[in-house]
Amino acid sequence: METLSVRTSRQVELIDITSSVRSVVLKKGVISGMCMVFVPHTTAGITINENADPSVRGDIIKELDKIVPHADGYAHSEGNSAAHIKASVMGFSQNIIIEAGDLQLGVWQGIYFCEFDGPRSRKVWIKVISSKS
Amino acid sequence: METLSVRTSRQVELIDITSSVRSVVLKKGVISGMCMVFVPHTTAGITINENADPSVRGDIIKELDKIVPHADGYAHSEGNSAAHIKASVMGFSQNIIIEAGDLQLGVWQGIYFCEFDGPRSRKVWIKVISSKS
Amino acid sequence: METLSVRTSRQVELIDITSSVRSVVLKKGVISGMCMVFVPHTTAGITINENADPSVRGDIIKELDKIVPHADGYAHSEGNSAAHIKASVMGFSQNIIIEAGDLQLGVWQGIYFCEFDGPRSRKVWIKVISSKS
Repeated sequence: METLSVRTSRQVELIDITSSVRSVVLKKGVISGMCMVFVPHTTAGITINENADPSVRGDIIKELDKIVPHADGYAHSEGNSAAHIKASVMGFSQNIIIEAGDLQLGVWQGIYFCEFDGPRSRKVWIKVISSKS
Repeated sequence: METLSVRTSRQVELIDITSSVRSVVLKKGVISGMCMVFVPHTTAGITINENADPSVRGDIIKELDKIVPHADGYAHSEGNSAAHIKASVMGFSQNIIIEAGDLQLGVWQGIYFCEFDGPRSRKVWIKVISSKS
Repeated sequence: METLSVRTSRQVELIDITSSVRSVVLKKGVISGMCMVFVPHTTAGITINENADPSVRGDIIKELDKIVPHADGYAHSEGNSAAHIKASVMGFSQNIIIEAGDLQLGVWQGIYFCEFDGPRSRKVWIKVISSKS
């Protein structure tokens, strides 16, 4: 597998990692298969969403803060339970189809690293699986 | 990969695509592996849920509308931020095991295309990966 | 694929199944690939989260109960619509990278079976896919 490093700069932030993931896939040279993008953390997740208007990302961040408030009587002493919960809601991996040696995404889709307890230095693991066997 | 076309008829709707996905898997002839079902949109998602009582689908739709209200002070000018957020919450893909050449689902499970910003003409991408290598 | 049996003892509960999943992977002897962990139910899900402080699990359970209340005017007559909705929010599968013959998880990550309508006898399906082809 390959590892990407992601440096986040805010407490909550969505960072577009599409081009970095694509570079790994192109380098691997797998023509047909799938690409797993996995976050090895428990207070960060990964999602897909619109790559055009950045206000979509802002709306996702704000609405998740309403759904899972930062302070809500949590028991976990580190004070970051909301980040743990948001990460489970968004998910820790995305799987993307590979055809013709490239990631297959919709026209408006980008892959976003979801920081929920930053700023931190984070990792993203990428694994390419071939369907030719 | 294979492409399914899905025509939605409401703004928010869950459409059972299990039999269409199964047809692709049977056609591919892969005995053992996995099937990725991927939605290349940003205001539609995909989930698994009960295939028996349709009121479950109705409850999912209504509750998601409460959790992520259609209007909630969003910044995105297209007015469909709730759809973007619901899609990320449900997810853009489901992965299903293939054994004996067929999809392996629980007795009560169906695969649902989740329209959150319809009605529209949508696509679903299906990729079959063999585990025999 | 392999099947794990999980006996839950409460209505809502997160159960660590990491070591059972790891045992299956080690037994399969696949050096490089991925492991799908799939729940064939519609009122239980699967997630990844912190394996250290159990209060994180408690906070996840409580907050999901706030987001998707047990009683909220649901139409489904079985009375377990909240469980169906929570399962879709958490997801029915997790995919984990395999390298060097072992599951690759972050230091703080564990794999959790999410019971939302227990206590029950449940199943978890595990499928290992090799990337060598």
